[in-house]
Amino acid sequence: MKDRLVIFDTTLRDGEQSPGAAMTREEKVRIARQLEKMRVDVIEAGFAAASNGDFESIRAVAEAVKDSTVCSLARANENDIRRAGEAIKPANSGRIHTFIATSPIHMEKKLRMQPDQVVEQAVRAIGWARQYTDNVEFSAEDAGRSEIDFLCRIFEQVIKAGAKTINVPDTVGYNMPGQFANLIAQLIERVPNSDQVIWSVHCHNDLGLAVANSLAAVMAGARQVECTVNGLGERAGNASMEEVVMAVRTRADLFAVSTNIDATQIVPASKLVSQITGYPVQPNKAIVGANAFAHESGIHQDGVLKHRETYEIMRAEDVGWTANRLTLGKLSGRNAFRARLTEIGITIESEEQLNIAFARFKELADKKQEIFDEDLHALMSDEGVTPEREHFKLLASSVRSETGETPHAAVTLSVDGDEARSESEGSGPVDAIFKAIEVTAKSQSELLLYSVNAITSGTDAQGEVTVRLARNDRVVNGQGSDTDIIIASAKAYINALNKLHANTQRVDPQGESL
Amino acid sequence: MKDRLVIFDTTLRDGEQSPGAAMTREEKVRIARQLEKMRVDVIEAGFAAASNGDFESIRAVAEAVKDSTVCSLARANENDIRRAGEAIKPANSGRIHTFIATSPIHMEKKLRMQPDQVVEQAVRAIGWARQYTDNVEFSAEDAGRSEIDFLCRIFEQVIKAGAKTINVPDTVGYNMPGQFANLIAQLIERVPNSDQVIWSVHCHNDLGLAVANSLAAVMAGARQVECTVNGLGERAGNASMEEVVMAVRTRADLFAVSTNIDATQIVPASKLVSQITGYPVQPNKAIVGANAFAHESGIHQDGVLKHRETYEIMRAEDVGWTANRLTLGKLSGRNAFRARLTEIGITIESEEQLNIAFARFKELADKKQEIFDEDLHALMSDEGVTPEREHFKLLASSVRSETGETPHAAVTLSVDGDEARSESEGSGPVDAIFKAIEVTAKSQSELLLYSVNAITSGTDAQGEVTVRLARNDRVVNGQGSDTDIIIASAKAYINALNKLHANTQRVDPQGESL
Repeated sequence: MKDRLVIFDTTLRDGEQSPGAAMTREEKVRIARQLEKMRVDVIEAGFAAASNGDFESIRAVAEAVKDSTVCSLARANENDIRRAGEAIKPANSGRIHTFIATSPIHMEKKLRMQPDQVVEQAVRAIGWARQYTDNVEFSAEDAGRSEIDFLCRIFEQVIKAGAKTINVPDTVGYNMPGQFANLIAQLIERVPNSDQVIWSVHCHNDLGLAVANSLAAVMAGARQVECTVNGLGERAGNASMEEVVMAVRTRADLFAVSTNIDATQIVPASKLVSQITGYPVQPNKAIVGANAFAHESGIHQDGVLKHRETYEIMRAEDVGWTANRLTLGKLSGRNAFRARLTEIGITIESEEQLNIAFARFKELADKKQEIFDEDLHALMSDEGVTPEREHFKLLASSVRSETGETPHAAVTLSVDGDEARSESEGSGPVDAIFKAIEVTAKSQSELLLYSVNAITSGTDAQGEVTVRLARNDRVVNGQGSDTDIIIASAKAYINALNKLHANTQRVDPQGESL
Repeated sequence: MKDRLVIFDTTLRDGEQSPGAAMTREEKVRIARQLEKMRVDVIEAGFAAASNGDFESIRAVAEAVKDSTVCSLARANENDIRRAGEAIKPANSGRIHTFIATSPIHMEKKLRMQPDQVVEQAVRAIGWARQYTDNVEFSAEDAGRSEIDFLCRIFEQVIKAGAKTINVPDTVGYNMPGQFANLIAQLIERVPNSDQVIWSVHCHNDLGLAVANSLAAVMAGARQVECTVNGLGERAGNASMEEVVMAVRTRADLFAVSTNIDATQIVPASKLVSQITGYPVQPNKAIVGANAFAHESGIHQDGVLKHRETYEIMRAEDVGWTANRLTLGKLSGRNAFRARLTEIGITIESEEQLNIAFARFKELADKKQEIFDEDLHALMSDEGVTPEREHFKLLASSVRSETGETPHAAVTLSVDGDEARSESEGSGPVDAIFKAIEVTAKSQSELLLYSVNAITSGTDAQGEVTVRLARNDRVVNGQGSDTDIIIASAKAYINALNKLHANTQRVDPQGESL
């Protein structure tokens, strides 16, 4: 019997710290449900003290998820831990994850604390956390650059205080696998009662080694890996959950552990996270990239099928790649629509939402011959379908562009219920429609990123547009999809404006990251 | 004095085997010049026997590049090696890289040869190659799944026959770092005269471990790494050159080697390869992703600058990230234009090309207030600027799209000099213009991928569109850029049609890959 490797997903916390990847409560719940379906052991749903929005999101995830443990991050202070404890209260199984920095540079420059004070504070934090749950995790921020004697000392004390999981993050992605494995092995060897806790790692990808470092640590005795879907996360991101899971599974001959993950849910999870955050997955990304399996690209299918085992170490279907299935058409009814949504893992929250979604589906089916699963995912991630309050809405638009003339656009928006029409010229039709929207919206935001992906192939594919806007310190991603790229662009822009309008205040999590 | 780690770039060979990443001769020369500027030691420019186009491309690279060694891949047969030898003839320094499979499954199912015959064939191949150059590399395809005794035996014989570099590929990306390092260490230990050759590795990324495996091998004694810009390559790709180079450099405390690479050329190379192949780089990609350096994303700049060393292990400027520099405007003259192109590494081939490019620049400056380096890169990768023969050209277009009406487009094309006008409706304006083009072009191709990226930020940014078309077994990527997304789309579609029209015949390289 192999040891269980605990998969701790932090897409909703560390992943969300990617610029512009902030998610709404509903989006977090949708991702959390998918993580639960994959049988992720622990879902880190956010950082409760960061904002009321974070707190509410964690609470909503704790209410929605039954099978996975739901966790909140907390700095090692009483207020953070109280907020975390309250946020996870509704969970069947909840965890508080508290941390403090242990590297000389961080203790001196950021905390301005002496090592003795840091140990004391950590021990107190475990005590506060245990008032809410026995499931307490402790992290030593920047452990990768900390002194091992000090790590041994602080870990010994927090274990004594009741921490059940000890996490060793490589905060700045500086470690090499051999070195990191050695650190973990030494800690397990030297820390008293190390066999009473689960050792965990949290690796960043700055040198492209997050997965390798995590796996090396597992070989040295770590039994929890903190990771994210698609390797999302600050800077170059975290360890990719899909790579960790499939390496352990594919090389079962070398690993003394196995995970509980349902690998067939990997690709759906990857697509969901990519759609919600607006972060694309590059085609040559391992496991979840469009080219990761040669025969998925539609090329050389024969060659691959002929001697499959000569080149394949995993099967595409094992990780949830399926052919684009023609699922629904113009004549599909309400029940077929609802049934297919359930099959592909989309939960309908209310009859009202089903009504709106079904109306959109009929509208789409008028414009597009074949409706694929990907179209349904896009449809359901469309802002209008979730019954959140929208400040701006697109009612109508008109665009013309002709060689030798300046492109022109006109839009009619609903602004909090009132109709407003505006128009503008631009350097292209997208520029023109964005400027026309701005004439009414006056957001004074800056466009940081604009990207489009076709959701399915074929010329009548829907375009999915991501627009990243910045205003002062806030950055938001808006998404919109439509068979008309100009309309998809306008929808994405308005979605981003609505997020800016919601104007959630957050504590800056930068400088407070593992 | 540290050992030199030889950087062998195979973007132009293994990278090109990514679906749709086929490059023209001019594109290969442009990338090769950038690789030379980075001080890459060896450039694998193609697989000479694959097609006449490949042969000509290698020859063109061999003529253009002076400082780097130029290499061609060749199967272990006389014809392949003759073609390789002829292709690299113009090079200051040329190399032939010959290979044969050594794993039981490949020898039995693909080669249908006995192990003795495989050794004999390999030795003969080295002899043929040495008629052209002393710089001969031998690869054991699927070495990662081969028996070590057999590897020792074949390597001993090819070294005796005169091979100077011995490459150990992990063809299917199946190895773990510790295991792979152990294989390399054992080979160096056991093979007679192993100190007379350079040991090389070529790792694939199927489990996300290509870079980790390469670095582990270097720690075990390998002194050449085969890699690609952006980790491009079949399936999940090869080891990323930028990650290998920066890991060795950042962890100079752990590595006994150093590379000759000018790291400030990394980001320009990444952008060039991405633009030419149409393969995007995901934002959370290490080193070259848009978010890889937090302060590049424009967010939390203060936090990062305040205690820079607390979170940074590399500096963005060390790998060539620079702020978007406002370089040229409407009033810039021809000389300023040419000078800036030279500064950013673009070589003008002829006065004719400069004239065309300068005219395009003036056109763009009319539409766009500020012209950045990225705009110039896009401008120069535009099909029309390179004096290649174009079968189809876009002369004029007109598009309208209005809520409640079906989008409509009309185009005027030049088809081999003759004008043709056609129009169509579509599910969106892009669909309409593609269909309008097809009315004239009748290509019978299938649209596999459509994507757009803004090259610079701001609403007047140019959109860069990639269109992937397939017809029968051929897949091509077309690119187009314009401030008008519909026109950029039309240009990209026509670029792809021109590539399909060129209709190069290639030997299927699948099943012949390292």
